[in-house]
Amino acid sequence: MSTVSVKIQPLGDRVVVKAIAREAVTKSGIVLPDTAKEKPQEGEVVAAGSGKVLDNGKRTTLEVQVGQKVLFAKYAGTEVKLDGEEYLILRESDILGIIE
Amino acid sequence: MSTVSVKIQPLGDRVVVKAIAREAVTKSGIVLPDTAKEKPQEGEVVAAGSGKVLDNGKRTTLEVQVGQKVLFAKYAGTEVKLDGEEYLILRESDILGIIE
Amino acid sequence: MSTVSVKIQPLGDRVVVKAIAREAVTKSGIVLPDTAKEKPQEGEVVAAGSGKVLDNGKRTTLEVQVGQKVLFAKYAGTEVKLDGEEYLILRESDILGIIE
Amino acid sequence: MSTVSVKIQPLGDRVVVKAIAREAVTKSGIVLPDTAKEKPQEGEVVAAGSGKVLDNGKRTTLEVQVGQKVLFAKYAGTEVKLDGEEYLILRESDILGIIE
Amino acid sequence: MSTVSVKIQPLGDRVVVKAIAREAVTKSGIVLPDTAKEKPQEGEVVAAGSGKVLDNGKRTTLEVQVGQKVLFAKYAGTEVKLDGEEYLILRESDILGIIE
Amino acid sequence: MSTVSVKIQPLGDRVVVKAIAREAVTKSGIVLPDTAKEKPQEGEVVAAGSGKVLDNGKRTTLEVQVGQKVLFAKYAGTEVKLDGEEYLILRESDILGIIE
Amino acid sequence: MSTVSVKIQPLGDRVVVKAIAREAVTKSGIVLPDTAKEKPQEGEVVAAGSGKVLDNGKRTTLEVQVGQKVLFAKYAGTEVKLDGEEYLILRESDILGIIE
Repeated sequence: MSTVSVKIQPLGDRVVVKAIAREAVTKSGIVLPDTAKEKPQEGEVVAAGSGKVLDNGKRTTLEVQVGQKVLFAKYAGTEVKLDGEEYLILRESDILGIIE
Repeated sequence: MSTVSVKIQPLGDRVVVKAIAREAVTKSGIVLPDTAKEKPQEGEVVAAGSGKVLDNGKRTTLEVQVGQKVLFAKYAGTEVKLDGEEYLILRESDILGIIE
Repeated sequence: MSTVSVKIQPLGDRVVVKAIAREAVTKSGIVLPDTAKEKPQEGEVVAAGSGKVLDNGKRTTLEVQVGQKVLFAKYAGTEVKLDGEEYLILRESDILGIIE
Repeated sequence: MSTVSVKIQPLGDRVVVKAIAREAVTKSGIVLPDTAKEKPQEGEVVAAGSGKVLDNGKRTTLEVQVGQKVLFAKYAGTEVKLDGEEYLILRESDILGIIE
Repeated sequence: MSTVSVKIQPLGDRVVVKAIAREAVTKSGIVLPDTAKEKPQEGEVVAAGSGKVLDNGKRTTLEVQVGQKVLFAKYAGTEVKLDGEEYLILRESDILGIIE
Repeated sequence: MSTVSVKIQPLGDRVVVKAIAREAVTKSGIVLPDTAKEKPQEGEVVAAGSGKVLDNGKRTTLEVQVGQKVLFAKYAGTEVKLDGEEYLILRESDILGIIE
Repeated sequence: MSTVSVKIQPLGDRVVVKAIAREAVTKSGIVLPDTAKEKPQEGEVVAAGSGKVLDNGKRTTLEVQVGQKVLFAKYAGTEVKLDGEEYLILRESDILGIIE
């Protein structure tokens, strides 16, 4: 999936994520519990912004990198379609963690 | 479209964007999904502000530049008509990414 | 209109604007679209404040200057009458752009 | 009116203002428009605080000074009576401009 | 009243105030107007905190001092009884001004 | 009560407080008034956090220390039971003052 | 439990916590009171983020470390399942204290 040439360069602290379907999630060992709580979703980072501008004018470096698998809140971000594939544009703060 | 002489100089972190119609979007390979989520729209930056003033008194440099194609939230910004053409004045934070 | 001796010195990041009537707007080539979105209005800056105080104690310099034509959100600001003429006191952040 | 010995020293970025009645307002050439918008009111500054403490620990200097006539939002501030006269204690940010 | 040994040391930007009854208020020349606006109340500062911690780690010095008479918003703060006397613990920002 | 070996180390600007029952409060001279206002409660600090991290990366030093009696808002904080005794975990900002 | 190889690296000021069931809580001496107040829950930190980025661009060091037992608000965070085990991803600010 990392061979897809992504055509969107996200701004600031945003990343473009390719969500991984529920079936794939189960295979990789992450099972999302079936409760009333906010359910995270798994995906792969395919593009990352250049960071958020701080009050001192410098940019933070994003913690996530292209190619990493991440967990994010299910209803976060904005969906876009790119060459027939669906992607999500998220802020890094919506990403809960990196799956190693 | 970049040959249009834009007559509005946006203030601060605002940009003037010429929205691209849905048909054009489909041609360029970006298809907006048909869900209940906020749908982004494609456009071209025709004017950019001089940046936001930070707490230390300096201005940020905008990430987007005139001529770039951008994705932005559909209901963001303020519409204006200029010489018969419709434009949008957006804050840079409403722009999700640059389409390359 | 710039020959009107304005008697109000706006504080901080405020400006005094003389709104231009809808007819004038059409003549100068700006036509406000007829949608449900917030419609901007055109006006001329007749007085400008000395800037907003930042956290470091310094004042920002306003981007707009007396004599410039500006676009601003229609329901922004406070109306005042001065020698029989109506003016608006706006914050600079309510000004979308300068019409060149 | 500036000869009234004011007995309240306002704190921080507050000022004590003696509101001017509607009749006086009309005489000085300021007529408040009769619309649904927030209507400003005219008054004279009779006491001013020592300024707001910034994040760097310094105080801002207030822009308004005792003796100046100011415009402020009608429902701003707190009313007090002092020796039978009504005054308003306002924050400087509620003051729209100085009438010159 | 300043001879009461106060047993509460307020934290941060808080002060302990002994409210003065309405009758006393009238004698000292301050009459609270009978309107729908928030009505301030008069009191004497009997203890003051060591100041608020700023972002740079330093403490502000409170503007009010023990022994001063102050005006404060009527419904601000928390009531406590101390040796049978009622007091109010207020933040300095709830104090409108010092009565001189 | 200060001889109880507390097993919780509160984080940041939090403190662990052992609330003192109403009867004890009356004996020590503090009587909580019976009004509609928020009523403070008395307690003893049995553990204190290492302070809040400021924007400059340094930690504040807490004003309250283990062993001090404090007043705090009645509904503030989170209750925990430790070896059969009830405690409250509060932020220092919920503490109104130190009873001396 | 600390021998579980955790596969999620939490971002920023987040930690991954393995909640401890109510029965275990009772054994370790912490009994959660049965009131209407927010009830904390006990757990063990199995992974910790690299800290929150401050306004000056530096990261805070988290106070909690892998292996520590912590108290946290019951409805805080996001649940995930990892190799059949349930975990919680929390922000450090949701952790009330470290159980020693």
